Amino acid sequence: MRFGTDVAAKGVRERRFDVEVGGRTVPGLLWTPEGDEHPRPVVMLGHGASGSKSQDYIVALARGLVRHRGLCAVAIDGPVHGDRRADKGEVDGLPFADFVARWSADPALIDDMVADWRATLDAVQALPEVTPGPCGYWGLSMGTIFGLPVVAAEPRVSVAVLGLMGIAGPTQDRFTADAPTVRCPLLYIVQWHDELFPRDLAFKLFDAFGSGDKRMHVSPGMHAEVPAEEFEASGRILGEHLLD
Amino acid sequence: MRFGTDVAAKGVRERRFDVEVGGRTVPGLLWTPEGDEHPRPVVMLGHGASGSKSQDYIVALARGLVRHRGLCAVAIDGPVHGDRRADKGEVDGLPFADFVARWSADPALIDDMVADWRATLDAVQALPEVTPGPCGYWGLSMGTIFGLPVVAAEPRVSVAVLGLMGIAGPTQDRFTADAPTVRCPLLYIVQWHDELFPRDLAFKLFDAFGSGDKRMHVSPGMHAEVPAEEFEASGRILGEHLLD
Repeated sequence: MRFGTDVAAKGVRERRFDVEVGGRTVPGLLWTPEGDEHPRPVVMLGHGASGSKSQDYIVALARGLVRHRGLCAVAIDGPVHGDRRADKGEVDGLPFADFVARWSADPALIDDMVADWRATLDAVQALPEVTPGPCGYWGLSMGTIFGLPVVAAEPRVSVAVLGLMGIAGPTQDRFTADAPTVRCPLLYIVQWHDELFPRDLAFKLFDAFGSGDKRMHVSPGMHAEVPAEEFEASGRILGEHLLD
Repeated sequence: MRFGTDVAAKGVRERRFDVEVGGRTVPGLLWTPEGDEHPRPVVMLGHGASGSKSQDYIVALARGLVRHRGLCAVAIDGPVHGDRRADKGEVDGLPFADFVARWSADPALIDDMVADWRATLDAVQALPEVTPGPCGYWGLSMGTIFGLPVVAAEPRVSVAVLGLMGIAGPTQDRFTADAPTVRCPLLYIVQWHDELFPRDLAFKLFDAFGSGDKRMHVSPGMHAEVPAEEFEASGRILGEHLLD
């Protein structure tokens, strides 16, 4: 784990880092409280397609977890996103269709991203300011495409927030296989008018999760219109389960 | 408004009252803070079929609104329930089928209950300890059958919690007509395995509400298995909207 820039604002320290995994360099950001190295559980934050580890809602959620929920947070760029893009993310956005093309062409993409997350988790949990063991996962849309297999594979994940997805897309067979193996407490977020993943398929995925302790929050609006209260609900459930 | 028994426990005063409406005597309970007459907004609590104004979850919710949310609460017995039963509620429970038979036979039942709630609201809002004007409504199942028309008819209702219902039952045409006229912020509660009102019909009702600010919380389990966290979520949304 190599650290890069290290900045702080309003009590939150943000560090850029790289982790090496299977020949890949995985770029990430770690948020911890400034001037307090008492260990805290970490939440992995998976961004959406065409976003990155440093897009606004990821940074805002991370800072809120540190400031108001007693946690720390880590995000990594997804494949072909952020600093893993050929242009290093200098051009804004990646068309959703481009991600879907890649998703369709390469099923190994998901296994690689699961490995990237697990190596990242190992690295940050080796730091004195991060509690080893139970952690959280939060990711919607592409953050669920990659995150559902992480939550299924990684026994340290003790609470998860997933959503904006369904039994849909090129890896729907994998979702069908993985979802029943998810057993941790779960908040599942659906947008009623989601134009990318129809609600019926989202409901099928909710039904498939093996967690006894799960709940689905449905809001009006399109895919990208998740209301602020669901970010609040995310922070609440992550805090409740990781700090009990 | 005639008051009866008046008791207090752990900071919450509970008063039995009767209101006369169109020749009917409507029995109710009012919960306010003990020893504090500073006015607070009130939430109307509508119980479910076979329950009453004094069943456990109604009393627990009422006491929580008074103790933790800065509100007061009022409940009345539904028709053929509680003190409005021939046996005065001395025999526990009323089979759900008996309620459905009455619901099917008498559409005026709903208009009467709307009148009962409005007269009750007038009466309690005339008390110095209750704020006139904006108020809340909370009611699931039969509490939505009677409550949806109350929320639609009564402009003072500024926030509502409804659920365990659908575009279903003998008055489904009325729900279809009333739901789009509901404009206040709304929390709508659904049980995924509801054996009385299938989820597809519940989703149709969610879709039909006219509120721009609405959200649906779905939990696993049958009709009567609403988890504690949805009572917490109810208190949160009622408090946020009535005390802003």
